[in-house]
Amino acid sequence: MIKITLPDGNVKEYESGSSPYDVAQSISSGLARNVISAKFNDTVVETTTPLTEDGSLTLYTWNDTEGKKAFWHSSSHILAQALEELYPGIKLTIGPAIENGFYYDVDFGEHSVSEKDFPTIEKKALEIARGKHDFKMRSVTKNEALTYYKEEGNEFKVELIENLEDGTITFCDHDTFTDLCRGGHIPNTGIVKAFKILNVAGAYWRGDENKPQLTRVYGISFPKQKELTEYLAMIEEAKKRDHRKLGKELELFTFSQKVGQGLPLWLPKGAALRERLEQFLKKAQKKAGYEMVVSPHIGQKELYVTSGHYEKYGADSFQPIHTPKQDEEFLLKPMNCPHHCEIYNVKPYSYRELPKRYAEFGTVYRYEQSGELHGLTRVRGFTQDDAHIFCTPDQLDEEFKNVIDLSLYVLTSLGFENFTAQVSVRDMDNLDKYIGTAENWEKAENAIINAAKEKGLNFIVEQGEAAFYGPKLDFMVKDALGRQWQLGTIQVDYNLPERFDLTYKGSDNELHRPVMIHRAPFGSMERFIALLLEHTGGNFPLWLIPEQAIVLPVSEKHEKYAEKVLNSLENNEIRALIDDRNETVGKKIREAEMNKLPFMLIVGENEEQANTISVRKHGGEDLGSISVESFVDLVSKEINSTLKSF
Amino acid sequence: MIKITLPDGNVKEYESGSSPYDVAQSISSGLARNVISAKFNDTVVETTTPLTEDGSLTLYTWNDTEGKKAFWHSSSHILAQALEELYPGIKLTIGPAIENGFYYDVDFGEHSVSEKDFPTIEKKALEIARGKHDFKMRSVTKNEALTYYKEEGNEFKVELIENLEDGTITFCDHDTFTDLCRGGHIPNTGIVKAFKILNVAGAYWRGDENKPQLTRVYGISFPKQKELTEYLAMIEEAKKRDHRKLGKELELFTFSQKVGQGLPLWLPKGAALRERLEQFLKKAQKKAGYEMVVSPHIGQKELYVTSGHYEKYGADSFQPIHTPKQDEEFLLKPMNCPHHCEIYNVKPYSYRELPKRYAEFGTVYRYEQSGELHGLTRVRGFTQDDAHIFCTPDQLDEEFKNVIDLSLYVLTSLGFENFTAQVSVRDMDNLDKYIGTAENWEKAENAIINAAKEKGLNFIVEQGEAAFYGPKLDFMVKDALGRQWQLGTIQVDYNLPERFDLTYKGSDNELHRPVMIHRAPFGSMERFIALLLEHTGGNFPLWLIPEQAIVLPVSEKHEKYAEKVLNSLENNEIRALIDDRNETVGKKIREAEMNKLPFMLIVGENEEQANTISVRKHGGEDLGSISVESFVDLVSKEINSTLKSF
Repeated sequence: MIKITLPDGNVKEYESGSSPYDVAQSISSGLARNVISAKFNDTVVETTTPLTEDGSLTLYTWNDTEGKKAFWHSSSHILAQALEELYPGIKLTIGPAIENGFYYDVDFGEHSVSEKDFPTIEKKALEIARGKHDFKMRSVTKNEALTYYKEEGNEFKVELIENLEDGTITFCDHDTFTDLCRGGHIPNTGIVKAFKILNVAGAYWRGDENKPQLTRVYGISFPKQKELTEYLAMIEEAKKRDHRKLGKELELFTFSQKVGQGLPLWLPKGAALRERLEQFLKKAQKKAGYEMVVSPHIGQKELYVTSGHYEKYGADSFQPIHTPKQDEEFLLKPMNCPHHCEIYNVKPYSYRELPKRYAEFGTVYRYEQSGELHGLTRVRGFTQDDAHIFCTPDQLDEEFKNVIDLSLYVLTSLGFENFTAQVSVRDMDNLDKYIGTAENWEKAENAIINAAKEKGLNFIVEQGEAAFYGPKLDFMVKDALGRQWQLGTIQVDYNLPERFDLTYKGSDNELHRPVMIHRAPFGSMERFIALLLEHTGGNFPLWLIPEQAIVLPVSEKHEKYAEKVLNSLENNEIRALIDDRNETVGKKIREAEMNKLPFMLIVGENEEQANTISVRKHGGEDLGSISVESFVDLVSKEINSTLKSF
Repeated sequence: MIKITLPDGNVKEYESGSSPYDVAQSISSGLARNVISAKFNDTVVETTTPLTEDGSLTLYTWNDTEGKKAFWHSSSHILAQALEELYPGIKLTIGPAIENGFYYDVDFGEHSVSEKDFPTIEKKALEIARGKHDFKMRSVTKNEALTYYKEEGNEFKVELIENLEDGTITFCDHDTFTDLCRGGHIPNTGIVKAFKILNVAGAYWRGDENKPQLTRVYGISFPKQKELTEYLAMIEEAKKRDHRKLGKELELFTFSQKVGQGLPLWLPKGAALRERLEQFLKKAQKKAGYEMVVSPHIGQKELYVTSGHYEKYGADSFQPIHTPKQDEEFLLKPMNCPHHCEIYNVKPYSYRELPKRYAEFGTVYRYEQSGELHGLTRVRGFTQDDAHIFCTPDQLDEEFKNVIDLSLYVLTSLGFENFTAQVSVRDMDNLDKYIGTAENWEKAENAIINAAKEKGLNFIVEQGEAAFYGPKLDFMVKDALGRQWQLGTIQVDYNLPERFDLTYKGSDNELHRPVMIHRAPFGSMERFIALLLEHTGGNFPLWLIPEQAIVLPVSEKHEKYAEKVLNSLENNEIRALIDDRNETVGKKIREAEMNKLPFMLIVGENEEQANTISVRKHGGEDLGSISVESFVDLVSKEINSTLKSF
């Protein structure tokens, strides 16, 4: 008999040789039907692998990330078989699961594959899947493995095997197909009910541009056809909401070859949006006791040597800036924290004067390879909504709660309702690698966990995920398309106060080290606006959008009345403009729709007579002819439903 | 007879050999009494120099810059004589007039001079002055000159003479003293009635640190004792108002050795002040039709090669930033204009869409040698309140007027009432050196001059002072100490539109070049705040100051009432705070005075009973016990007296 520990801590006894499937069966037949992968003592195993010793077992279904990984890994075997059958003589290389689906890198030799071939491949793959072939792992000697692939003439697999230890090599068989494989499959091909080839692209063998070029075939698969349909609809919607596309259509930002890639230029409408976001956060931060500071975008290399950032970013980032006489060396700042430490250091503090909360919309620069740049989400220069709190260890609890409050206020005001949190704490088996006293770490970890509990966050605690200098909390936000984004890290730091020799005088009249908290609810203005664009499809919350309404006079005759309407809107703090171009109302409405203006206020003869406006909502809804006062009410109601006061 | 043309264009005939003094005498005996220097055909001459040919003559009095220059240059001769008499054997080198006074660089040999010796030197100098010795120029041969100084053992003067052409060398004698000198003196020493040694400092011969070290003796002199007294009082006041001193006392900004010299760190109070200045200008700019944009702080080298800034700043400024693979090259941006040109270039425009007015608080970086850095007035990184207007040549007139309006609004709102303007136009004798068509230049020059006239500016037109790429207007502002500052250049530019190939489609359906206007009413946030600090002595206009009032409860008992007062102040948009520390009211008042808070609102038993506040103005004026409403009225009245709406 062996003892199996389940994730809930329960320990059960099984006959030696029982499989994860047997364990699932013993729990419930429903679980047995759905289990598609398993982990035994931190190693991925098949659901059919015989367990012959005591250990911890986790069972995965399609709903788990690990379950999806096994599903997609197995699907790449099916893809490989389908390709081999359709294109005899091709050479397979590697085919892993990825975040959304899987790919296989293939040397197609004389063949070539393009979009028109996708339906044929999908059909063949589904045929294989329907065969319900079991995935069966078997050990092979290095020699057997080499012989197998040498006979196939596949130098890629040969190269892979040559780098493996004899005794650790396994093959996986299903149907007529065999592949070199470490394992981690679903029970059989039949579970795959929907199969889609997404894309083909070039890829170098081992990512090395001096090695042969292969074709990467991307695919995705699902246990239900409906899920594939939904996924493809989501992809389609994501394309429409791509912030790069919307950013261009709404004239928010641009990139210039001359200025340089990854360095966004914010056009008037985008700059106005940024400004409104900044003012919103500044107002909340002021209430929360933050003080704004301003620091330069460069600093002496020495500053970043002191902070440790030079060691971390130096070689891989923008290189040092020299002076004409070569007697000084500066760096573009990769972080604002060293500057804020120097601001803290300007004078001595008593514990009564803490916490100090310094905030700055600080633009930092970090080099990214051009291939890694992506719209506003991966850039070379970005503005962090940064702040650093310097407090006593006893104040951490309160400060952490305040930061969570502020972060939640920011997220919910901007329409993100669906989020979780992850708390990263020490690896208790490796306490040597952390700086700061155990007492302070405990204080900080407890402060974070208590704060997360008290604020009702849906959170998990990850052991060993803390940085060496302090524990942290990350918010994970789900956008309207169900995609996860990490937003708003709150990081405790015992390291920089040490490196910059920061002190305060305690009630004991002795000098102590303050603790630092780094936090940025938006993360960066660039990434946040990208996310907001994709989350809202460009239909920003009414309180945020720089232009809330546009007045459309039907002819020149009504411009005076339009001006009057605009005036009363402005007096009621509604941000509006007039389109008094000599164009038809139809054209003006179409353009206002394209610019995603929330309200179009049409004014003509009837409206002027009745002292009203005809209100059309973005999207087409007609709110009829109402007074300006009613419209103002309507707008403030909508604003108050999303933007509470902090 | 010779013909002398006077500055007003009048031509008069004089006997050959007449002196400038004779000419002055012929005009009025008052002028003859006051004339102390003259320029004949662009050459500085003595008032006694015989004029022997036709030419233009300008006569200078103490009220002219050139007159002061002659006065102070002559005073340095007097200083030199005094020093030689007091310290026999010293070696004189050079002794020019400077902006405020003069200096003489001296090798004191065995002697040394310090502050305690200043009264002795001053006394001796005044003794010499009272002798009313004439300054008399005479020509000497190079040989005579060399022999004279070789006999004196003065290797410095020998070196100077060796670099001069024979036939051009002159000596100046007065009393028993002789000096190598190009000329430009007042008639005699007696005009100098007040004489002050200001300072001694080290200086290298010819500014070269490898050459002998000399002592630089700084002095100043005046034709009236009263003027010296006023000058010394002004210097004293300027020291008190030094923005570096006030910036530290008011905790506005700091510098850090680690961050680097010339790179200011803005502390919370300074950042709040900046923010208020920025919001003030943003609001006015919005009304004036500007749109904000945001651009990065670096750009590819190529961008600045295109703009021509690389040629101008490249070698002498911060050196290029390389990437890890050395495949790209960036520069810290020395100017925002190239970025704004790229923003303009994002799409095509019709003439109907112009002007485009792009504004940005853009931080730029320019290397300055460490010896040239000075507080916030000479830094290595600064934020310009920059904007670029892209318009058709026909719109220049209107745009220029609008920019003048905005600049005047900014200056007067901030308490600068005393300003003049200088319009810089082409040198009509050298038209080749200007880019752009003559027609457009004429349009632009006329636009500027008309705008300056229409806006009632007190301005002068300087021929030949325009940059090669366009004419400009500079504001010259006099601060409270009577010092002149250049503020707010408005520059027309035909060059960048050419270099960036900017176009718009005209009413003729053809592509045309827009004209650019560069403008920055503050210049830079750093320099402007420095100037504002020195102009106001830190007592900023009430509308601007981030904290307008401080509520001072006399004891803990009255804190609740103090909170109530604070609340009603905030509801009336008065920015206030509470000092609820456990300190005496006396101490709280002293600190509030030091922090230059405009109003101190003391609340105790009497005030709470009567529902009033006791108002004390910064500086000590007691406004008595009044209601919060009366105080709000008082504040808005004071604000409305300086800050008009734009």
